[in-house]
Amino acid sequence: SSESELLISKLSLMIQMFFYLSSEKPKVAFYTALTDAETLGPYNTDITLKYSKVFTNIGNAYNPSTGFFTAPVKGVYYLQFTVFGFKAGHIGVLVYKNNQRIIYNREENNNDRVPEYISNSLVLELTAGDEIYLVLPSGWTIYDDSGNHSTFSGSLLFTL
Amino acid sequence: SSESELLISKLSLMIQMFFYLSSEKPKVAFYTALTDAETLGPYNTDITLKYSKVFTNIGNAYNPSTGFFTAPVKGVYYLQFTVFGFKAGHIGVLVYKNNQRIIYNREENNNDRVPEYISNSLVLELTAGDEIYLVLPSGWTIYDDSGNHSTFSGSLLFTL
Amino acid sequence: SSESELLISKLSLMIQMFFYLSSEKPKVAFYTALTDAETLGPYNTDITLKYSKVFTNIGNAYNPSTGFFTAPVKGVYYLQFTVFGFKAGHIGVLVYKNNQRIIYNREENNNDRVPEYISNSLVLELTAGDEIYLVLPSGWTIYDDSGNHSTFSGSLLFTL
Repeated sequence: SSESELLISKLSLMIQMFFYLSSEKPKVAFYTALTDAETLGPYNTDITLKYSKVFTNIGNAYNPSTGFFTAPVKGVYYLQFTVFGFKAGHIGVLVYKNNQRIIYNREENNNDRVPEYISNSLVLELTAGDEIYLVLPSGWTIYDDSGNHSTFSGSLLFTL
Repeated sequence: SSESELLISKLSLMIQMFFYLSSEKPKVAFYTALTDAETLGPYNTDITLKYSKVFTNIGNAYNPSTGFFTAPVKGVYYLQFTVFGFKAGHIGVLVYKNNQRIIYNREENNNDRVPEYISNSLVLELTAGDEIYLVLPSGWTIYDDSGNHSTFSGSLLFTL
Repeated sequence: SSESELLISKLSLMIQMFFYLSSEKPKVAFYTALTDAETLGPYNTDITLKYSKVFTNIGNAYNPSTGFFTAPVKGVYYLQFTVFGFKAGHIGVLVYKNNQRIIYNREENNNDRVPEYISNSLVLELTAGDEIYLVLPSGWTIYDDSGNHSTFSGSLLFTL
């Protein structure tokens, strides 16, 4: 009947909408550690940290050649970092969203060879193309080796 | 045919169930930092911390006027906090679920001006209406400024 | 008409595929704290830590009698640990995936009674059956009590 055909076309539309809705969450998750080169810094200028040990990079949103995580879609993202160091002086990291500094976290180590860890997490609403990266300020140090102390990771929680 | 009409009504029911299932996960995620007022405490009484810098609050489950995160639906939630301080004495925080203390985490700082961070995460099964909040015990201190050292965040992992 | 019946059978197939796709994400999340027994270690040999206080274990992927988290399906998992200690000497933990060490994180405490926390997170692509566990190396210590300082948690982000 034409009634059932109309119903079928409505069902078909609903299913297409549903596929669209269900497909809107891309799989995005990355996990990196900084380096095997041991202590980075102190430098004379701020540097963007390039986390070179990429353990997980589903969706390729993290670029190890720049150190940038670029949001592939508008959504809410979970981001986490751990910073490790044991040189006397300033140990820490800044987190930037595009050109805006969001986080400034720092330890001050009075004694050489005393390790210090900092961990923090962010839940950020990002637009497609927004870039998140971590910066080591001039004069500060950060350490990593095969123990994977200094890490940077994230994942998409949901799209908006 | 009546057979195809029966099939159509079955399909329609399945699609409605499916819409119901897919709509059951609300979008819930928040991310806050404590204050720009620098050191809080020591106080003569325990106080509930009101994280006043609300960067993300999808679903409005976090209330900055009380400091409470209230679960909007029954489900499993991921919660994270970082505590920072550098005053001599006790630095730390308690985590409460309703009237029950779940977490008691504390640093003891012997030297003034030596920063200390504590981070911890919880994955909790909550019923709609359950309240999570962080308490600064009497005599302890916590610090935050525009660096966003002391943070509290969370998200819904899945409904139950 | 036979045309509409063909369409119905196609719709039915799409819906079945859709149910399959939506049902492929099992609910997996756990949250544990180590012990109420206070200081563990130093031991003469490496030991696998059995986190005995199981607050959340949806999907039963964490086994408190072994300390192992076993991935129930192929997917990307978020894992987090916090280590606490205050004995002089080495405080920390190793993270293993099957027989492979992924993380080696350590504080060195020069003064007895000065607490130290380490937190770190991992986002790992795991195959069904992969085992994640934490090891306390010989000579190191870790502490926990009813404050739930030393924790191990995780959840499935998405299947692959």
